[in-house]
Amino acid sequence: MITLYTWKTPNGRKPAIMLEELGWDYQAKGVDIGKDEQFAPGFLKVSPNNKIPAIVDDEADGGPLSIFESGAILTYLAERSGRLLAPSGHARFKALEWLYWQVGGLGPMLGQLGYFANRAPEQVPHAIERFKDECGRLIRVMNGRLSEADYLAGDYSIADIACYPWMVTATTMLQVPLASALEHAPAVQSWLDRVGERPAVQRGMAVLQH
Amino acid sequence: MITLYTWKTPNGRKPAIMLEELGWDYQAKGVDIGKDEQFAPGFLKVSPNNKIPAIVDDEADGGPLSIFESGAILTYLAERSGRLLAPSGHARFKALEWLYWQVGGLGPMLGQLGYFANRAPEQVPHAIERFKDECGRLIRVMNGRLSEADYLAGDYSIADIACYPWMVTATTMLQVPLASALEHAPAVQSWLDRVGERPAVQRGMAVLQH
Repeated sequence: MITLYTWKTPNGRKPAIMLEELGWDYQAKGVDIGKDEQFAPGFLKVSPNNKIPAIVDDEADGGPLSIFESGAILTYLAERSGRLLAPSGHARFKALEWLYWQVGGLGPMLGQLGYFANRAPEQVPHAIERFKDECGRLIRVMNGRLSEADYLAGDYSIADIACYPWMVTATTMLQVPLASALEHAPAVQSWLDRVGERPAVQRGMAVLQH
Repeated sequence: MITLYTWKTPNGRKPAIMLEELGWDYQAKGVDIGKDEQFAPGFLKVSPNNKIPAIVDDEADGGPLSIFESGAILTYLAERSGRLLAPSGHARFKALEWLYWQVGGLGPMLGQLGYFANRAPEQVPHAIERFKDECGRLIRVMNGRLSEADYLAGDYSIADIACYPWMVTATTMLQVPLASALEHAPAVQSWLDRVGERPAVQRGMAVLQH
């Protein structure tokens, strides 16, 4: 059995989507970051970075295994199942480059824009502009890629699973600062529809809501 | 032959260190981001995100392969060589979780601190404090891990290669805002010494300097 420690955030939804795609039995445990539950000593053992998501796989080869960082979790689940990430060759590294692009770029930059545009206790126009510009650039890059392929790595993969919840955040909570960038990204919009109609994606996005 | 498109930055140095560790023949081509060379159309084909580093491996299985994103490049080189990343099991995912931690956390946060503390055209105290606090937290997390193991994944791996150039930046260009965090991270300091004395690391850090 896999236990998924998570919350209703873009990073928290990624492994839930993956587990739903695999159809595996898992238990989702809420770690309410609004109540600082990620700093509880028990959770620290699973996730020394005090962040969700994390998983514990009781049946891993070599004994129970805990993993933090959503990109590492997606890679683990893909390699354990043999699905949604090619085992070698070009397709594998196309998926991994877009997965790392999300983890190192799209995620942190949308995260910072969300903070400065929506939650910061003071208005910091210079920071809002900086992260708005960079997010706009990243959306253009994604649109360029999705103008030549239906999915980021060609076939649907863990790269799409990583990007989807973040792009949903871009089109909802960050719709105001990103309106212009999104309007000029029709291939991203089509991809959002294509990924969003998958039943497993819908179930994963609803993790902890029932 | 592998061509490495890179520059004298933390991310640009990671694949150079890895290639030096492997002892492989490669050609480093400078992409001067101070002159916006990353936006040249020829480079865009290799790196659609307009960022260094990127590699082209002319002898990849299935034909020439280009890869962008330093984390994907490190994973590719590790898997192609069978070195510095276990092929399966616990050790593999300990390395990948710390590699993703660098790519999604340590790198972006030190990068933003570098911008707001050293390069921004205006002083934004709120942003400096925000990124200083988060970098301090990340350094504490790293110190905790390195208090129980000599290297991030137990044995020396691509996770250490990914973190090293960024931590060198933390202790040099960001030494002022991070003085207190670094002073309280003796295990990180020992690790910096341990990694930094490797000849391959020294050669990789000096990429494009000759």
